[in-house]
Amino acid sequence: MVVVMKVNTAKEQIDKVNEWLHDRGFQTHMITGVKRIVIGAVGDKHSVAMSNIEALPGVEKVMRVMKPYKLVSREYKEENSVVQVGPVKIGGQGLVVVAGPCAVESKDQLVTAARAVCKSGATVLRGGAYKPRTSPYSFQGLEEEGLRLLAEAAEETGLATVTEVIDEESLSMAVNYVDMIQIGARNMQNFRLLQLAGKVNKPVLLKRGLSATVEEWLMAAEYIIASGNENVILCERGIRTFENSTRNTLDLSAVALAKTLTHLPVIVDPSHATGKRELVGPMSRAALASGADGLIVEVHPDPQMALCDGPQSLDPVAFDSLMAGLRPLASAVGRVL
Amino acid sequence: MVVVMKVNTAKEQIDKVNEWLHDRGFQTHMITGVKRIVIGAVGDKHSVAMSNIEALPGVEKVMRVMKPYKLVSREYKEENSVVQVGPVKIGGQGLVVVAGPCAVESKDQLVTAARAVCKSGATVLRGGAYKPRTSPYSFQGLEEEGLRLLAEAAEETGLATVTEVIDEESLSMAVNYVDMIQIGARNMQNFRLLQLAGKVNKPVLLKRGLSATVEEWLMAAEYIIASGNENVILCERGIRTFENSTRNTLDLSAVALAKTLTHLPVIVDPSHATGKRELVGPMSRAALASGADGLIVEVHPDPQMALCDGPQSLDPVAFDSLMAGLRPLASAVGRVL
Amino acid sequence: MVVVMKVNTAKEQIDKVNEWLHDRGFQTHMITGVKRIVIGAVGDKHSVAMSNIEALPGVEKVMRVMKPYKLVSREYKEENSVVQVGPVKIGGQGLVVVAGPCAVESKDQLVTAARAVCKSGATVLRGGAYKPRTSPYSFQGLEEEGLRLLAEAAEETGLATVTEVIDEESLSMAVNYVDMIQIGARNMQNFRLLQLAGKVNKPVLLKRGLSATVEEWLMAAEYIIASGNENVILCERGIRTFENSTRNTLDLSAVALAKTLTHLPVIVDPSHATGKRELVGPMSRAALASGADGLIVEVHPDPQMALCDGPQSLDPVAFDSLMAGLRPLASAVGRVL
Amino acid sequence: MVVVMKVNTAKEQIDKVNEWLHDRGFQTHMITGVKRIVIGAVGDKHSVAMSNIEALPGVEKVMRVMKPYKLVSREYKEENSVVQVGPVKIGGQGLVVVAGPCAVESKDQLVTAARAVCKSGATVLRGGAYKPRTSPYSFQGLEEEGLRLLAEAAEETGLATVTEVIDEESLSMAVNYVDMIQIGARNMQNFRLLQLAGKVNKPVLLKRGLSATVEEWLMAAEYIIASGNENVILCERGIRTFENSTRNTLDLSAVALAKTLTHLPVIVDPSHATGKRELVGPMSRAALASGADGLIVEVHPDPQMALCDGPQSLDPVAFDSLMAGLRPLASAVGRVL
Repeated sequence: MVVVMKVNTAKEQIDKVNEWLHDRGFQTHMITGVKRIVIGAVGDKHSVAMSNIEALPGVEKVMRVMKPYKLVSREYKEENSVVQVGPVKIGGQGLVVVAGPCAVESKDQLVTAARAVCKSGATVLRGGAYKPRTSPYSFQGLEEEGLRLLAEAAEETGLATVTEVIDEESLSMAVNYVDMIQIGARNMQNFRLLQLAGKVNKPVLLKRGLSATVEEWLMAAEYIIASGNENVILCERGIRTFENSTRNTLDLSAVALAKTLTHLPVIVDPSHATGKRELVGPMSRAALASGADGLIVEVHPDPQMALCDGPQSLDPVAFDSLMAGLRPLASAVGRVL
Repeated sequence: MVVVMKVNTAKEQIDKVNEWLHDRGFQTHMITGVKRIVIGAVGDKHSVAMSNIEALPGVEKVMRVMKPYKLVSREYKEENSVVQVGPVKIGGQGLVVVAGPCAVESKDQLVTAARAVCKSGATVLRGGAYKPRTSPYSFQGLEEEGLRLLAEAAEETGLATVTEVIDEESLSMAVNYVDMIQIGARNMQNFRLLQLAGKVNKPVLLKRGLSATVEEWLMAAEYIIASGNENVILCERGIRTFENSTRNTLDLSAVALAKTLTHLPVIVDPSHATGKRELVGPMSRAALASGADGLIVEVHPDPQMALCDGPQSLDPVAFDSLMAGLRPLASAVGRVL
Repeated sequence: MVVVMKVNTAKEQIDKVNEWLHDRGFQTHMITGVKRIVIGAVGDKHSVAMSNIEALPGVEKVMRVMKPYKLVSREYKEENSVVQVGPVKIGGQGLVVVAGPCAVESKDQLVTAARAVCKSGATVLRGGAYKPRTSPYSFQGLEEEGLRLLAEAAEETGLATVTEVIDEESLSMAVNYVDMIQIGARNMQNFRLLQLAGKVNKPVLLKRGLSATVEEWLMAAEYIIASGNENVILCERGIRTFENSTRNTLDLSAVALAKTLTHLPVIVDPSHATGKRELVGPMSRAALASGADGLIVEVHPDPQMALCDGPQSLDPVAFDSLMAGLRPLASAVGRVL
Repeated sequence: MVVVMKVNTAKEQIDKVNEWLHDRGFQTHMITGVKRIVIGAVGDKHSVAMSNIEALPGVEKVMRVMKPYKLVSREYKEENSVVQVGPVKIGGQGLVVVAGPCAVESKDQLVTAARAVCKSGATVLRGGAYKPRTSPYSFQGLEEEGLRLLAEAAEETGLATVTEVIDEESLSMAVNYVDMIQIGARNMQNFRLLQLAGKVNKPVLLKRGLSATVEEWLMAAEYIIASGNENVILCERGIRTFENSTRNTLDLSAVALAKTLTHLPVIVDPSHATGKRELVGPMSRAALASGADGLIVEVHPDPQMALCDGPQSLDPVAFDSLMAGLRPLASAVGRVL
């Protein structure tokens, strides 16, 4: 790390900082600049909080040279990780489309959706049984009954399944019914939930937080892997910015960047990102062109009756047409759908 | 609510939307504009998801007239709520200062901090026992041992206490030791935790999420109250913006605005907001001048040895001088400190 | 527009607002809700500032039903506009790639760049002669000499040309040398410059401001068209958000959305958006897949010698390989490159 | 500066970077870390673009040690600058309130406003004659007639005056009539206008751009001073964030921070920042408590008739009451009003 001293810091303060670093096992290199001293420190950064050094008298700032994550990084593992979700592989040459309703509402609704998305080429079924809702007065999900319906729909169609969990209880319930658990954007820094997800025997779909940097997103994945579960798939779903003509701002540069920084698969959710049905098509195409390993798309048999996210849900006909348009695009970027 | 139809929508589609609204108990008023039809709908909005109406063919957008929260609103309760935290009242004429270290590190550290802040005029002691940390490799807190130390320090000094909880387990542990539980910024939309906090018999300090709007912040408080606990104190601690010369952007307009929208007390955390010790003073003064009911300030006996947040922690001397400067300011805005 | 009155507003205040609207030619519709009155007002919104109505006693907020722009909207002109830039058409079936260095630095540099991008399939040459730089101490451009070099390079290669203007003087100079003038992100709301650009006989490439909403971007285009020049091309180049692992956040949802709202062509600048050479490829592909009508890409014969934007500039070999990868993608989305 | 090389970079590439730096007059210090090489480079950063070094093969990133501005910095001039605006001093012990209407609309309107704000204790009159408006169809200002009215009102009341300029023409006109020129938020990076403002003999009020960092704001001031005019006053007026319950987010931490980084006076505009009359009081108090040297407040004799910004304008009675409340607060923070 690099410790930048304030202009005109007394020599004795500089010596103290130097000594402090030595005491903690760092080798230091003093660089005398035009106006100030800079100390290069080489050693094990985990032995000390960078913020402590910033609290030392005379220090202006500390600049980190190393990345804060390890297990998720391309430097740790160079080749792409391929994560197995039920019968489906995510992260390889093939592109994967996860589809289904925002919330599981009824057997009829789910089975109709599952059959439709399966027929159009999706291989994983999504459906929420535990819904984190902004209002305490909104529909909160069917809970275990929803999980049961997912499992039934999976059995009938052969689709793999994914559902969101929101706490220890829903997590330990969900692993009995689905092939992958999802940690939602609002829980991306619910570190306790990340640790618990690190201890289950199912892959984890980790959505990026609304205002999480790429680094924080990777650190959240690091939490899961460090707790014992290396089967993590990242999902970009739009970040919160000043622009509100779309529900969120889909950050596809983050997808392309994440693919260079980590070996983990990255998929994209164009439905939550845009909040508008008519933008799901263009953003699905853009996501695959940016290098994403797949998509997660909201599909509802009858969007105007949906208990959540109706305006951004495709009906089966629109989804089928979306899938048809994605196939040539997949080939054009050297992937298979 | 107001339903705006697309330009040139066919009459039969408009009739269908109208009928749909009638079927769900709304009275409707058709307004024929220069280019489009607008439907004013009067009724119980909770019976139907606004997003569903947006999913109806021909609808361009739906604009909400009513606020989505009730129990937290000034319209529901006009006078200021005063929340009792141990022996301390928050939200009345008196201003309250909560102070103490980021994390409880040891008996010595905590007791030294507690004595110091008590002597300078703080009435509530803060100290983290369960720390949500961005990195899985950082110090995560002393857990129950930390709670025990908080209780001991409280007993010695007479201070009330507050500590952050991060899940069901830490919540049920903390209520045995402290006078107020805190829900941190990263958990502001951990709706399950909000519901659990609604069921305990201790007041809740609810920090605003890094990218939460004022409305979402109030909805999070609504969750707690709707679950049965009306003793909620809001805390503004900086939001995430493009500006990174400070750790976060302290949003004091949100404090002034929240005081007009809700009857709940609002306090401010200048330490996390700025991340810089030298800005804690000016922002503490600004916070009280903006109408906040109090402050929560990080104080550590020896900031450069702190296990977290050293650069933004005041030492006891700096804290004493801060408090001295706040007293005349409190009088100037008609409050007592 | 819809005027929402405060809860419990006295009847006489409501009558005054009603009268105020009548006096200005509005027809009004009073809607009595559960808790408050809402007034629907039909008429010519341009006769009155919405903000004035919000200033009337008893008014809580005014919600606009109509869009604030006209000439740029799809409702005004349904079919896509095709803008002629020298010999090149932008906005039709064909995709257009604009390429060249950030700044014109020398005859050699520019001619080498021009030949290279031409050979790889670009049809418009970019090059800055007047550079808006954050620091007064940075290279500010060759000014008229740069324009002359652009014209020479165009003559040799047959490429059309575009260059940025920053004030009246550079604008009146540039129109003598280039085929299209560019208004940069930092000048998107330099309304005087927009008006001047509306009076010249060259098409205008209008970059989106760093923190401009889609609506403000379209309003800036409206300024140019309302001043007499309908040949406007929009360019998305990334917005400023909390995320700083990329230089800006490329907002491709805004591209897809803009294509639904306006008939004007929209192109994308992946170089400024990302600031990183290795992301230019994925984001170029994503941009075309999202529905953009073309790209503007920084290419420098020797990026490490570039006087600006070296890290995001492609060298000719990388650009050639980019173009090769874009052709199958163009076909896959039904366009031609 | 510090040049961080990529992990596993070949020795010969490192040598090339080293040589490149030497050739440009830098002394270099090679630091061999655990996984990578870091080069500390000491010398004149202005001789070379940092971005060029980032474009060299093997370089991962370049970290700047020095601040990019000089003339505006506290390191360059330690004591506070006091700027003379007509008869008024800004930046000293005394706090200054600038007040008046958003736009000059008529002689009556302006004189009424001027008398009122003068009587309540303001010492500078604001009033826009050239208005940058988002819509080309909005009122754009009285231009020279407006300037003349400002000068008349000043003569009658003894107030100093400030008005916004938007281009070379308005600038050269305004300097004949007013005591201070203002550069608005949307023109903060209109570098040509900054340079022109650096050549006039009047102080400049420089508003922070909607999405400008503190560093960019200071660099804009550096432009003006480097062009020859050292009489610059900074004005924080709110930044653009995700939060839209207020018009902008008033960033008072930036005020406190700027006061540590620069010797220039800093004032605050609570009217544009909040967009809501009822928040102007609390935010005015907070601004002064944060260390601002003054305020600029919109006051209109009849806000509901204002041609712009009615909802955020105070009427004379409200302004008088605001001023009364600010006086004790000024004393409480050791200033005079």
